[in-house]
Amino acid sequence: MSQALILGTGLIGASVGAGLTGRGWHVAGWDPDRAALAEALEMGAVSEVVSDPFGAAGEVDLVVLCGPAAAIIETLERLETDALVTDVAGVKVPVVRAARHLARFVGGHPMAGRESSGPGSASAAMFRGAAWILTEDGAAETDLKVMEETVEELGAFPVRMSAEAHDAAVAAVSHLPQVVASALVDLVASDSTAFSLAAGGFRDVTRIALSEPGWWTDILTENRQPLSELLRRLSAELEEWAERVEAADRMAVAERLESARRARKGLAPPVAAVRVLLEDRPGEIARVGHALAEAEVDVRDLQLRHATRGGGGVLTLSVTPGQEVRLAEALRAEGFRLVD
Amino acid sequence: MSQALILGTGLIGASVGAGLTGRGWHVAGWDPDRAALAEALEMGAVSEVVSDPFGAAGEVDLVVLCGPAAAIIETLERLETDALVTDVAGVKVPVVRAARHLARFVGGHPMAGRESSGPGSASAAMFRGAAWILTEDGAAETDLKVMEETVEELGAFPVRMSAEAHDAAVAAVSHLPQVVASALVDLVASDSTAFSLAAGGFRDVTRIALSEPGWWTDILTENRQPLSELLRRLSAELEEWAERVEAADRMAVAERLESARRARKGLAPPVAAVRVLLEDRPGEIARVGHALAEAEVDVRDLQLRHATRGGGGVLTLSVTPGQEVRLAEALRAEGFRLVD
Repeated sequence: MSQALILGTGLIGASVGAGLTGRGWHVAGWDPDRAALAEALEMGAVSEVVSDPFGAAGEVDLVVLCGPAAAIIETLERLETDALVTDVAGVKVPVVRAARHLARFVGGHPMAGRESSGPGSASAAMFRGAAWILTEDGAAETDLKVMEETVEELGAFPVRMSAEAHDAAVAAVSHLPQVVASALVDLVASDSTAFSLAAGGFRDVTRIALSEPGWWTDILTENRQPLSELLRRLSAELEEWAERVEAADRMAVAERLESARRARKGLAPPVAAVRVLLEDRPGEIARVGHALAEAEVDVRDLQLRHATRGGGGVLTLSVTPGQEVRLAEALRAEGFRLVD
Repeated sequence: MSQALILGTGLIGASVGAGLTGRGWHVAGWDPDRAALAEALEMGAVSEVVSDPFGAAGEVDLVVLCGPAAAIIETLERLETDALVTDVAGVKVPVVRAARHLARFVGGHPMAGRESSGPGSASAAMFRGAAWILTEDGAAETDLKVMEETVEELGAFPVRMSAEAHDAAVAAVSHLPQVVASALVDLVASDSTAFSLAAGGFRDVTRIALSEPGWWTDILTENRQPLSELLRRLSAELEEWAERVEAADRMAVAERLESARRARKGLAPPVAAVRVLLEDRPGEIARVGHALAEAEVDVRDLQLRHATRGGGGVLTLSVTPGQEVRLAEALRAEGFRLVD
């Protein structure tokens, strides 16, 4: 039986623990928050709690550091163990640097998460199908192999990268959108008439501005080099947009919108979408649920777009490709109208 | 019986038509796209089709101009009628200017829409609960009253504003986010490693980049003055963000994230949210549907957040305030775990 020690049993730590205990691992857990630790124990995400994390690190096969990036870096610097050590921080260059004294280290970043936090939202299924970056920097091939197997046990697919390539990539797809959403809210909220008219599109673009500020302050400042460079590039691009719009350069505006649309379409998840028109009356979702049960399809994603303050809408259901015809038939049988 | 003429029977025009015919209006329709017009007639969104739109405009109580902003402006300039004229364009200063020769004009903008287009997605319920801006510029009080009543018949709530205030507001909450989403996709898509790692947050922020380029080219260039000013302000703000991040100014970063989060929270729709944990297995949505039927609640919005390539997730259900306790009980009775 493999033995793991999880330092930090919040949302991600408890999800890793639940996944490992479910696969037969013995998992020791520690967290500065005693209530979070007790909850993780109660839900079976950890098999036992330890009181001395640094001592316990010498007695396991794998140490997993979870929690805010700054706490992970601080703990790494003080950690002494011959065990394989990994972490889940969203930034990797400073983490790999802080782990240089360790004999066996492979940095990790599961690209999954939820808006909520704490072990109460934890789930062994959280990493199913998600990419899990593993840093190659100075890692032994045997340790990378162990981590790849472990990550696969949790249902994720491992992706090897250098810490630097990881940090550049997440600066673009994660940290930059976070700053953009916050900057946009700040700018628009200063105009209360405008803000009161914000509808679906604005809500979508700015939803991530609801994320936990403390956690993001860590990530954004730790990844300052690639992020600040991207912020400057986007700033320059918006300045160019201002010129295009001001000059009413329809051709340039259309070209840019078209190229962005084409690229964004390439991001479509590997699922087939069925779009169904819902009327604004009670029981519509229940009827959709009934059709789903009849069709026996597995919904991977769904979203209801609605008017500013309610009123029907289009529900987009994304299913495994091949299942969309069956779902469409079941929805039509329930009397729904499908749209393109 | 009131008589209306709808010029442009696409998504919005056919929805207006369906709403008016449903309230007993006689609705004549015209569209340059004969197939769209036939579809609108078949679904009852228009009572009859006309072949001479400019002639027919003299024989009704209300003329409603729908379609792309540039087409609306062009049609307005050629229109001669003593009837009350309105439109649905997303930009109002150039529209009001093009209507100066008309005896009776009140510009309008229903703040509702869908990602799809064409009469096939049209619905009389589309405007239920949505704000519908009416321009006060040069409009007679009696005509504004008629438009307020008409808009209320369609289920929307009228909001009077000057065309200039409208254009400034939508530049902020609608046009600026559109450009930001497109610029962000363009920038990030140039790095294929990064782009392949894009997950839920990036998808949310950039979803509106999928919108129809032709339609948006019209709107963005027609509203060039307020939009280009806002683009320059956001560009400057991102430059400041780059400096904060580069200097690792944790206090300033945290302060900005916190103030944006506070403002965004103020945008929460007037609904109560219930968040339920879904496991990655078939039939989960059907069970949710069953709980919804049991609780007899009216879902206003729902969204499933999932991992990069599937794997359970948290489903957020938004219901009319007061119904959330009943819904939570029904979900727990189905064996679901709720999260904060």
